[in-house]
Amino acid sequence: MIETIRWDGDAVVMIDQTRLPAEENYVRCASYLEVADAIRRMIIRGAPAIGVAAAMGVAIGVAQARPESLDEDFERICAELAATRPTAVNLFWGIDRMKRVYRAHRHLPFGQLRDRLIAEAKLVREEDIAINEAIGKNGASLVPDGKTVLTHCNAGTLATAGYGTALGVIRAAVEAGRKIDVFADETRPFLQGARLTVWELQHDGIAATLITDNMAGHFLKSGRIGCVVVGADRIAANGDVANKIGTYGVAVLAKENNVPFYVAAPISTLDLSIPDGGHIPIEERAASEVTHVFGVRVAPEGTAVCNPAFDVTPNRYVTAIITERGVARTPYLESLAALTAK
Amino acid sequence: MIETIRWDGDAVVMIDQTRLPAEENYVRCASYLEVADAIRRMIIRGAPAIGVAAAMGVAIGVAQARPESLDEDFERICAELAATRPTAVNLFWGIDRMKRVYRAHRHLPFGQLRDRLIAEAKLVREEDIAINEAIGKNGASLVPDGKTVLTHCNAGTLATAGYGTALGVIRAAVEAGRKIDVFADETRPFLQGARLTVWELQHDGIAATLITDNMAGHFLKSGRIGCVVVGADRIAANGDVANKIGTYGVAVLAKENNVPFYVAAPISTLDLSIPDGGHIPIEERAASEVTHVFGVRVAPEGTAVCNPAFDVTPNRYVTAIITERGVARTPYLESLAALTAK
Repeated sequence: MIETIRWDGDAVVMIDQTRLPAEENYVRCASYLEVADAIRRMIIRGAPAIGVAAAMGVAIGVAQARPESLDEDFERICAELAATRPTAVNLFWGIDRMKRVYRAHRHLPFGQLRDRLIAEAKLVREEDIAINEAIGKNGASLVPDGKTVLTHCNAGTLATAGYGTALGVIRAAVEAGRKIDVFADETRPFLQGARLTVWELQHDGIAATLITDNMAGHFLKSGRIGCVVVGADRIAANGDVANKIGTYGVAVLAKENNVPFYVAAPISTLDLSIPDGGHIPIEERAASEVTHVFGVRVAPEGTAVCNPAFDVTPNRYVTAIITERGVARTPYLESLAALTAK
Repeated sequence: MIETIRWDGDAVVMIDQTRLPAEENYVRCASYLEVADAIRRMIIRGAPAIGVAAAMGVAIGVAQARPESLDEDFERICAELAATRPTAVNLFWGIDRMKRVYRAHRHLPFGQLRDRLIAEAKLVREEDIAINEAIGKNGASLVPDGKTVLTHCNAGTLATAGYGTALGVIRAAVEAGRKIDVFADETRPFLQGARLTVWELQHDGIAATLITDNMAGHFLKSGRIGCVVVGADRIAANGDVANKIGTYGVAVLAKENNVPFYVAAPISTLDLSIPDGGHIPIEERAASEVTHVFGVRVAPEGTAVCNPAFDVTPNRYVTAIITERGVARTPYLESLAALTAK
């Protein structure tokens, strides 16, 4: 059983996703600053997992705050965690949830407030696992039998508190008896597909084949791919989806070849405050992620690089959005609002 | 001045493209078997360069053949070289050209026949440079001014005897005063874009930005890409284009975003003997190219891999095919036949 993140009394423990699969190391974050650093460095990544990490980061920050300047410390903790990564809305959702609990229980003695926040952070984690299982149940029947499922990046156990969003749908389809196998895009530059998705699916005994990102089109055209399932980092009110760079390309190629393209994500990934994907901030990461692979230089000295970590897939390429509350289809403005109101 | 391949008296000398840009090594192939091995291992790659290497391989093979069993040796030399890589038709074109010269001069004394074949192989190389310059001239005016050109893989000096096909068009556009810069897809798994295209363009002082393959869609959607120019490994009679894996995806994404998609290739890349791209054999290469980067493992032990080295872009995504004899547009069946008959 892979454990992405857990609360360990006085620290947050995470599996180090920068070293997998070569090394299975666990990182112990003993302060909110260490949690923030872990998010920034992608020791933990994946929108739902980042939401859990943010909640736990707030909890550990408050546990170590000075009772005499609690409000001030609390603001600083939340601001520091919020500044780690801009795209996945679950980060802000996790912090906001902790802010609401903080405000509701601010009147309590410090020890009780602290315990309440720690309990909430643990609850965020537990709920996320249940949410992913519900996403899996809702999505399983959409996966065509006897075909290959293509996925991009890692939207599995490692991207969540457990079970996964896109990989949750795949797991649920397998549990429901579907005879499927998986094609995993390697997902440059961070190689989440090669390093994390293949590793996870090997753990589960689900047949997985690794391809480079630029092979996705070839196999979508070949007829062997029954559907695409990916996760999401932020979904706008109109159903535009921000997800790992390359998702947009896969979505266009899926549509061009009449292959259904599914997005699996918790309701916490919806950002109904923005009308469309044009309002989603896209994180630009370090050039060295592209010019180096595991520390080995693959491009000449002085190479200019663009490294947007995400792209936006317009809603017209999205066949359905699978959430824990049900499956949304076009028109998304209405279907997503209805799911949120449930 | 980069020299991809040259005849050196009693050997064929090639720059080792598996080690660039980290090391600028030259490999000396002293027999046709060493030339075949260099093609197979991609010490030399790129369809036109492979054509030159094949011709030089035949020449060196004949120079070392036994005059008493010349016809037999010649067949074995040609068969060995033809078996190295299946997709780029220039390989077979280069061998066939040498076969024609062999037959036409078979009656000569061995020394004269040998010299005639060596001269022909050197001519193939010299002609290729002139052909690429003509391709550049024919394509330069198609490149929109003030925008970025996206290219995939390496179709430059290193893929040819010199100047390049796709990069030849870019070079000619720059020489004609176009204010352009280049986005280079890194082109996994072999990283021709990161390792070779960026390196070549740096040599020429043409501004180049490296992106991962899965970023191409994002930038095609962004509006900054004025056109795509790529090379080709084989073009069917109807204009379907086999080229480096990922080309198909770029072509679809270009069309989806109304960005012109140009293929630059010599007439020797046309294979009018096949009606469409479905007849082009696609080489499957070793899994280790995907699971390892410069010897560093990036996927778990036991990872299953697909590694098709090429894909086929249907003609409907191709805005034009730029050759040394002119620019072909749809319907390609007619326009390509007309260029060939010139």
